[in-house]
Amino acid sequence: MSVVDRLPGGVTAAAGFAADGVACGIKRAAGVRDLGLLVSEVECTAAAVFTTNRIQAAPVRLSRRHVACGRAQALFVNSGNANACAGAGGEADALAMAELAAQRLGLATERILVASTGMIGQRLPMEKIRRGLAELQPSRAGGGAFAEAIVTTDSMPKEFAVRVALGRREAGIGGAAKGSGMIHPNMATMLSFLTTDAAVPAPLLQDMLRTAVDRSFHAITVDGDTSTNDSVFLLANGRSGAPPLVAGSPEALAFQEGLDEVCKHLAKAIARDGEGSTKLIEVQVRGALDDMQARLVARTVAGSSLVKAAVYGSDPNWGRIACAAGYSGAEVDFERMDVAVGAMALVRGGEILAFDRHAAAEALRGPDVLITLDLHLGAGTGMAWGCDLTERYVEINAEYTT
Amino acid sequence: MSVVDRLPGGVTAAAGFAADGVACGIKRAAGVRDLGLLVSEVECTAAAVFTTNRIQAAPVRLSRRHVACGRAQALFVNSGNANACAGAGGEADALAMAELAAQRLGLATERILVASTGMIGQRLPMEKIRRGLAELQPSRAGGGAFAEAIVTTDSMPKEFAVRVALGRREAGIGGAAKGSGMIHPNMATMLSFLTTDAAVPAPLLQDMLRTAVDRSFHAITVDGDTSTNDSVFLLANGRSGAPPLVAGSPEALAFQEGLDEVCKHLAKAIARDGEGSTKLIEVQVRGALDDMQARLVARTVAGSSLVKAAVYGSDPNWGRIACAAGYSGAEVDFERMDVAVGAMALVRGGEILAFDRHAAAEALRGPDVLITLDLHLGAGTGMAWGCDLTERYVEINAEYTT
Repeated sequence: MSVVDRLPGGVTAAAGFAADGVACGIKRAAGVRDLGLLVSEVECTAAAVFTTNRIQAAPVRLSRRHVACGRAQALFVNSGNANACAGAGGEADALAMAELAAQRLGLATERILVASTGMIGQRLPMEKIRRGLAELQPSRAGGGAFAEAIVTTDSMPKEFAVRVALGRREAGIGGAAKGSGMIHPNMATMLSFLTTDAAVPAPLLQDMLRTAVDRSFHAITVDGDTSTNDSVFLLANGRSGAPPLVAGSPEALAFQEGLDEVCKHLAKAIARDGEGSTKLIEVQVRGALDDMQARLVARTVAGSSLVKAAVYGSDPNWGRIACAAGYSGAEVDFERMDVAVGAMALVRGGEILAFDRHAAAEALRGPDVLITLDLHLGAGTGMAWGCDLTERYVEINAEYTT
Repeated sequence: MSVVDRLPGGVTAAAGFAADGVACGIKRAAGVRDLGLLVSEVECTAAAVFTTNRIQAAPVRLSRRHVACGRAQALFVNSGNANACAGAGGEADALAMAELAAQRLGLATERILVASTGMIGQRLPMEKIRRGLAELQPSRAGGGAFAEAIVTTDSMPKEFAVRVALGRREAGIGGAAKGSGMIHPNMATMLSFLTTDAAVPAPLLQDMLRTAVDRSFHAITVDGDTSTNDSVFLLANGRSGAPPLVAGSPEALAFQEGLDEVCKHLAKAIARDGEGSTKLIEVQVRGALDDMQARLVARTVAGSSLVKAAVYGSDPNWGRIACAAGYSGAEVDFERMDVAVGAMALVRGGEILAFDRHAAAEALRGPDVLITLDLHLGAGTGMAWGCDLTERYVEINAEYTT
């Protein structure tokens, strides 16, 4: 295990990063933070993964252009308004956010990345943002305020950091994320901001981020909806003093492990915080034809409304689990399939076991539910996280008024 | 309009078909019909469309083999037990059902199609089925009893029939279906049995059924789960006296129209009967690059949990509709998109209109909700039906005990 240990904090856990968050009045509730700034002492290599939704918010389009050169130095973010579906004015507002932050920090506009989350179809209140920016005082201690400033319907801010050994040196990797599992009122988005003081060339940084996202944020499924604003950013400023990572080296593998750890922790926190949810569901799949098929089965099972409702009711309903695997699109054969909840085997090689219903229901009662499938077809493995489906989810999403 | 008019009845509305349904004790509740037989006076051409789930129930596998030659004369069906995931014994039971019906009717086993729906993972009670079969007395009047015998969690039986003009002759097309939208407890399946007294060569019959299913049953989306038993069967016995249909002829087009009508009516009845639902949602999409993309958008919007919950709450949430279109996988551009609910335009060419919220909420309040999207990208059109998502859906599916 190369991940040395957990660090306190989030986006400012790694050396050379400063952040802050303030309330500037975009959100209706008074005094709730809604504007955040994250900045590195020095220019960073930068990587990002964006939503695959065909409708992309203005800040996504702008940040995609800025990150394309692989360099950035600051992130300027607001919550309460997603700046999506807001026409040409919205595009201008996203650019204005980058320009304002660049001016304030004395950087080139192209080195600023922006992100927004919240209501869609409304113009950003630029005057409030301008005033809020003047109040932001980024510091090492401000990581928590930044994490608070990016949330919308989240029940709590989400941050995490680790320290990894890179040969004889160490580097920090930290981050903050927002998302309440379900992409709530008008698609209020999953966002994650990651920082490290390792030195990582931009193309390698992008590869590693893509890998970590596949293993974490892409493994979360809550209601199948993909937002217009989903973004994950990673800045690497090299302030640890460790030499630049080389693809395939032991140091690069250690860094990947640490990055995976941070991303997985944040992704699970989002899944657990799903609207109305009471349980985190982890689905582990083995024995698929390949890893992609295993992941497909895991995501389909974790995303099935019938499975999610059964878990909510602590019902060991192996039939719904097997059925979801069957329509996932992956190769499956019920006659070979094993299904278990927690440590309790329900089906082995397609044979329905005479399991103790009471004990099986118990395995579904805790806040962490594990569903395991072995397809016995190949060596593919994969997993997914989701949450249960409750009456409260329907209430939240039906009661909401545009 | 070539569909002359609606006929009373269902599977026995066309000439030369007889049916019946009895209670044989597969379902726990006493006296509830659970065994049905449908038979034609003469051998029919036959077509069928089956579930795409990789896990297929034994009756699906058997009927797929029997219908492959394009001929059949009777359908033997039970509800209360799906005969799925029941091992080699289940395969033998499906074959035994066909053999018993063949014996009773004096037909070859290969001319019998079978279907089952209900609980999975349990062997069929063959002795009850044997005794029930002896009680079945198929008649023209027995279509309603057959329709009752195939339901599971449906709130009502579903049947429909029409008469179509084929040149100077007429033919009847009728059917019965089951499915309560959500594929309830252990995937209890969508089944549909269609009959006609038109004369239709088997390959043409299969083409026409595939087309009708694409326009109807494949346009229903309720919770995205696809059962192990889903099947649609169509038998054509030629008893109308109309000459055999020729592909592309005006008569074939008229028949297709009538078949579409019956399938759409039954499909909408299933969507409307979704577990816990209070509203039927129809999504109409125009202006997609092609029909396939239009259908994809329609199904994705109708299937979005966030859209379904918004409709339940009568919330004119155009953002969730546009977002679902965005992640459907089809080409969309918000800047060109029109969105409307009922007759009320919400978005035009990506511009959010100053619509009357109260009136828009009214358009979502009735039992039939229409959502319209025009993508303004091409000539593709498509549609889908779904239902709203309610607290009751979660209750039904969480409370259920295996």
